[in-house]
Amino acid sequence: MSGYVPGEQPQDAGVIKLNTNENPYPPSPNVYKALKTALNPSLRLYPEPQSDTLRTVAATVYGVKPAHIIVGNGSDEVLSMLLRCFVGPRDRVAFPVPTYSLYDTLVEIQDGVAAAVDYSADFSVPPSLSEQNAVLTFLCNPNAPSGTLVSLTEIERLARSVAGILVVDEAYVDFAASEGASSIPLIRQLPNLIVLRSFSKSFSLAGMRIGLAFASEEIISGIMKVKDSYNVNRLSLIAAAAALKDMPWMVRNVRRIQRSRRKLTTGLKRMGFDVYPSHANFVLARKKGQNMKRVYDDLKLRKILVRYFDVPMLQDCLRITVGTPIEVQALLKAMTAVEL
Amino acid sequence: MSGYVPGEQPQDAGVIKLNTNENPYPPSPNVYKALKTALNPSLRLYPEPQSDTLRTVAATVYGVKPAHIIVGNGSDEVLSMLLRCFVGPRDRVAFPVPTYSLYDTLVEIQDGVAAAVDYSADFSVPPSLSEQNAVLTFLCNPNAPSGTLVSLTEIERLARSVAGILVVDEAYVDFAASEGASSIPLIRQLPNLIVLRSFSKSFSLAGMRIGLAFASEEIISGIMKVKDSYNVNRLSLIAAAAALKDMPWMVRNVRRIQRSRRKLTTGLKRMGFDVYPSHANFVLARKKGQNMKRVYDDLKLRKILVRYFDVPMLQDCLRITVGTPIEVQALLKAMTAVEL
Repeated sequence: MSGYVPGEQPQDAGVIKLNTNENPYPPSPNVYKALKTALNPSLRLYPEPQSDTLRTVAATVYGVKPAHIIVGNGSDEVLSMLLRCFVGPRDRVAFPVPTYSLYDTLVEIQDGVAAAVDYSADFSVPPSLSEQNAVLTFLCNPNAPSGTLVSLTEIERLARSVAGILVVDEAYVDFAASEGASSIPLIRQLPNLIVLRSFSKSFSLAGMRIGLAFASEEIISGIMKVKDSYNVNRLSLIAAAAALKDMPWMVRNVRRIQRSRRKLTTGLKRMGFDVYPSHANFVLARKKGQNMKRVYDDLKLRKILVRYFDVPMLQDCLRITVGTPIEVQALLKAMTAVEL
Repeated sequence: MSGYVPGEQPQDAGVIKLNTNENPYPPSPNVYKALKTALNPSLRLYPEPQSDTLRTVAATVYGVKPAHIIVGNGSDEVLSMLLRCFVGPRDRVAFPVPTYSLYDTLVEIQDGVAAAVDYSADFSVPPSLSEQNAVLTFLCNPNAPSGTLVSLTEIERLARSVAGILVVDEAYVDFAASEGASSIPLIRQLPNLIVLRSFSKSFSLAGMRIGLAFASEEIISGIMKVKDSYNVNRLSLIAAAAALKDMPWMVRNVRRIQRSRRKLTTGLKRMGFDVYPSHANFVLARKKGQNMKRVYDDLKLRKILVRYFDVPMLQDCLRITVGTPIEVQALLKAMTAVEL
């Protein structure tokens, strides 16, 4: 097998990096402050095995009990635990495509069968998604790389109709255009629902690797069994708790990114791109039938990194992370030069 | 299944914690210094996907090429990757017992078959270990919980006679009584050998979760494929590199622990315990046929935590982490009180 290929991570500071959906703004000053206090001999001691302090903080913020939460070394680790927990050889795992390509890789590692169902043209949930007889069904919401959002009504319907577990991956949900987009409140009434969250995007902590899963107590205690004993280090736990204690900082950055997203979308549409309505910190821009590899390469020469996916459904698209206003402006300017 | 049960992690600062083999001394001051510099907006960016900077530093220290190294979120994550990489349902995984009980748990998660072979009374390698037709064979060296060490000659013989891969888990090897105990140099001539290292013990960084695996380039590139894309966070990578750049600090702490180990061993022998010759930062003390649960409980009441294993082969044993001279003295004093 070939493995998942992550986006480029250049160490060159001169690059405008709009390729892996990082937040252009730094984390809350609370995070640095808390981390600084933690640089002491306690680093010699193992971290809390079940991340109880962070779970307690997160439980308050998200209105659930700590027993409804598990903490992962990034939501990627949570995904990997879910696969190990629920998927045996030849078990089916369903997801609409195009979506986060890691799902496919993880299914392959676990010798499961990927049931990839094509999204409708408008990225609404394909009706046959619930008919795949899958032990796990993934829905990235907002979806990557389209940025599109599925309603809670749709998610509830899907959870009630799939054969197994429904996993809603909400890595980007804090960027949704309107409030109330998260499925977390639904875990009370839907015993087969798992909701994933990440600190990498809205909380500006991609470097710290922290993800959360929310589900029924029964599911959480099951996943705990396959978790590495000490899966999250002391400093990441402290960073995440400090970030959660400064929600206004995160919300302020999200609002700035939403404003830049509108500018980026308008600018790209002016250049003749179709841009899907984005509820994430990136947009997917399509020039129907026109391969975007050359544009990607040209932008790279100009030290602007965006994401090009060399797969049939996405070759005429670019996925562009929403940066600062200055970065958005630089990108649009470069795109104009490239286009001409 | 029941899952692995990690040692207790009390948050009470008054407890003498000799139960999970942490280093009683703090990490190098270099570590704090490097971490402090890293508390900046770069936390918003993903870490290096393949931990290249740390691999380069480690390659120099251990005399191999970076391509011979993979970095894990603790050596526990490396173990978990190895299982996902090499073990399918009904595949056999061999290890001598008693040993690190996580091996057994990981095999169960992967639906493999654990071929547990009893150690000889002196903890030398049981001859039938190599005859298990196993895809993976684990050897914890020095072994936990016995602290005993197997020679490189034995390891080479074992690697040449097993059917599949031999994994030598060297979490404790820096504490070996004499130099040259590590199998890392053997990876050159033994293409089926994987050697694991941890920063949790000798480098006093259990809280940061960093482990390394050393093997042929072919094996390493295979494991890379099942690795989570960004499996180690920025600060842990920085802490590990800083620790490796101050080897004298680690060596000095190891020497102090070796001295305390001698005192602890002598003290326990005086009380009539059999103590296995330890090459680790803990000792296994046995009172033949006498269940140690009561002693464990009594010590806990006195706020001293040691490890008691409720399994037939180890019920007459206690595993005691080597603490500071003061902690060793307190433990021996409490043991005397308990024994009387």
